Amino acid sequence: MDATPPLALTMGDPAGIGGELTLAAWARLRAEGGPAFVALDDPARLSQIAAQLGWDIPIAAVSGPEEAGSVFRDHLPVMTIRCPVPPVPGSPDPANAPAVLGSIERAVALAQAGRAGGVVTNPISKATLYRTGFAFPGHTEFLGALTGVREPPVMLLASPMLRVVPVTIHVSLRQALDTLRTEEIIRTGLALSRGLRDGFGIASPRIAVAGLNPHAGEEGAMGDEEPRLVVPAIEALRAQGVDAFGPLPPDTMFTARARPTYDAALCLYHDQALIPIKTLDMDGGVNVTLGLPIIRTSPDHGTAFAIAGQGIADPGSLVAAIRLAADMAARRSSKAAA
Amino acid sequence: MDATPPLALTMGDPAGIGGELTLAAWARLRAEGGPAFVALDDPARLSQIAAQLGWDIPIAAVSGPEEAGSVFRDHLPVMTIRCPVPPVPGSPDPANAPAVLGSIERAVALAQAGRAGGVVTNPISKATLYRTGFAFPGHTEFLGALTGVREPPVMLLASPMLRVVPVTIHVSLRQALDTLRTEEIIRTGLALSRGLRDGFGIASPRIAVAGLNPHAGEEGAMGDEEPRLVVPAIEALRAQGVDAFGPLPPDTMFTARARPTYDAALCLYHDQALIPIKTLDMDGGVNVTLGLPIIRTSPDHGTAFAIAGQGIADPGSLVAAIRLAADMAARRSSKAAA
Repeated sequence: MDATPPLALTMGDPAGIGGELTLAAWARLRAEGGPAFVALDDPARLSQIAAQLGWDIPIAAVSGPEEAGSVFRDHLPVMTIRCPVPPVPGSPDPANAPAVLGSIERAVALAQAGRAGGVVTNPISKATLYRTGFAFPGHTEFLGALTGVREPPVMLLASPMLRVVPVTIHVSLRQALDTLRTEEIIRTGLALSRGLRDGFGIASPRIAVAGLNPHAGEEGAMGDEEPRLVVPAIEALRAQGVDAFGPLPPDTMFTARARPTYDAALCLYHDQALIPIKTLDMDGGVNVTLGLPIIRTSPDHGTAFAIAGQGIADPGSLVAAIRLAADMAARRSSKAAA
Repeated sequence: MDATPPLALTMGDPAGIGGELTLAAWARLRAEGGPAFVALDDPARLSQIAAQLGWDIPIAAVSGPEEAGSVFRDHLPVMTIRCPVPPVPGSPDPANAPAVLGSIERAVALAQAGRAGGVVTNPISKATLYRTGFAFPGHTEFLGALTGVREPPVMLLASPMLRVVPVTIHVSLRQALDTLRTEEIIRTGLALSRGLRDGFGIASPRIAVAGLNPHAGEEGAMGDEEPRLVVPAIEALRAQGVDAFGPLPPDTMFTARARPTYDAALCLYHDQALIPIKTLDMDGGVNVTLGLPIIRTSPDHGTAFAIAGQGIADPGSLVAAIRLAADMAARRSSKAAA
């Protein structure tokens, strides 16, 4: 028996680029021999996208991931989630929110039951979901609630050149400064170290911790957050056996010379983490959620309503997300078997 | 007569890597046919560095830049500024501050008199100069005072892949937030537009203006600085004929796809500008000071005391700084001649 079951791939917002990316990812991965996934999506709408783009993608409805492995070589396997109204590319419709959310819930349930190796999510539109009463700040928090974790999950962005984790995420820069806490840096660092060990197979992860200020404050000349908040967190992490070091000057820690000296960079605010990884590699980045009981990855882009339906969206990040989730699942099951 | 006189290259801190970079830059540029420069430095200490590194660099004392052009092909031309005490690599000595500052003052005077095409500065150690009563926040402000400009100069960082200007510079991130003003964004944008036109020969510079918050605030969901501070600045710049646009999400504006859409990025804080340019190109970046009556460039690194004297420092950024200053000087003199 194959150790790792196929992955579950969600629909995302059906007015976005998710559908065409799912089709393109299947075409690329089946040609390359996998890894296999099952789409939790509306087969009618996927067929329509394929027809409109002139893509020859045979679709097969399946009842579960168990069937997907053998089907995948010749058909895109789909577990059916019907859209209440026909999706229109570029025009998100709150009426389809039950399908968007149902796809995520179903994928999580399959992964929790061990029937799917992990969950890969297509991008959703928070603004559209909010209009239907969706009350989570984002995808990741929704997954945390579905899987019943107590601590907020941690967002890791991974590309072939760099891995980064922001300690504060979707808040204003001012709020990031106001809410940055030593405890949160420690908690994130611990989750990162565990995630690199269990998910990426790095025995002793080296974690580079960023400073907050220019030149990491230059000995207190520009801000006191480094000695006051960051250094105590690094010391606490080291006391717990984590190979954390810093605080490093933010502008020189992502250079080609610096990157090989660590396995991941722990960053203090959104753009400190996102600017370097996206500047280096716009399309190869993958979002990994650490701290969930299941494996979850996603492409590092949004719904891209402006170009949806044209077949020009790059499936590179979704393909990378599927590959990484499969690697993580294989590592987890070989560890469980050992 | 050659339209542009040689450049004046300052000593920098004589305990740093400046001396060996000056020697290496001469060796590279004379082999490549220029541009010529004259070092304002201590010939005895340069000879000693060359001897210790086993480098064969013939040095010629000259009385002014006028002699440097013909000398440059066979000798490194040096206008003598004596160090009061023999410099020790890695150990900066405040006793040499008069030579460090004298070199800068002399270079500026030569450029102001039109005898040097522009000034290229080796890195200084502010901490060492402060101990001698030096009262300027940095190199750039000192140059502003020497040339008598009223408005603070603007720092442009240029590499082959990207040009960036930070509106706030060497202050803590919190102070950057607290002091960011619409007027300052406008002033910096105007100086940038002028600098790109006069110094880089770009007739209608396109200026991409960064947002402050993640996703540029996402319509006010994360911070209000975009509508409150940045949009009015962009409107004012456009009203004055500057092709400024934004505010752009900071994490996606430096990608390979985005960079060709503008000539320079106007950034709101130090690391928003410095992270992308250094991440893309650690050694090719050049610092250009806009808003001075003279041309001034410098390498985008510090004194590097830790590796001074070993001959391992990369002269790439200094060579790029010299080439860029020469390009700018040629453009200025051809414009003056027209």
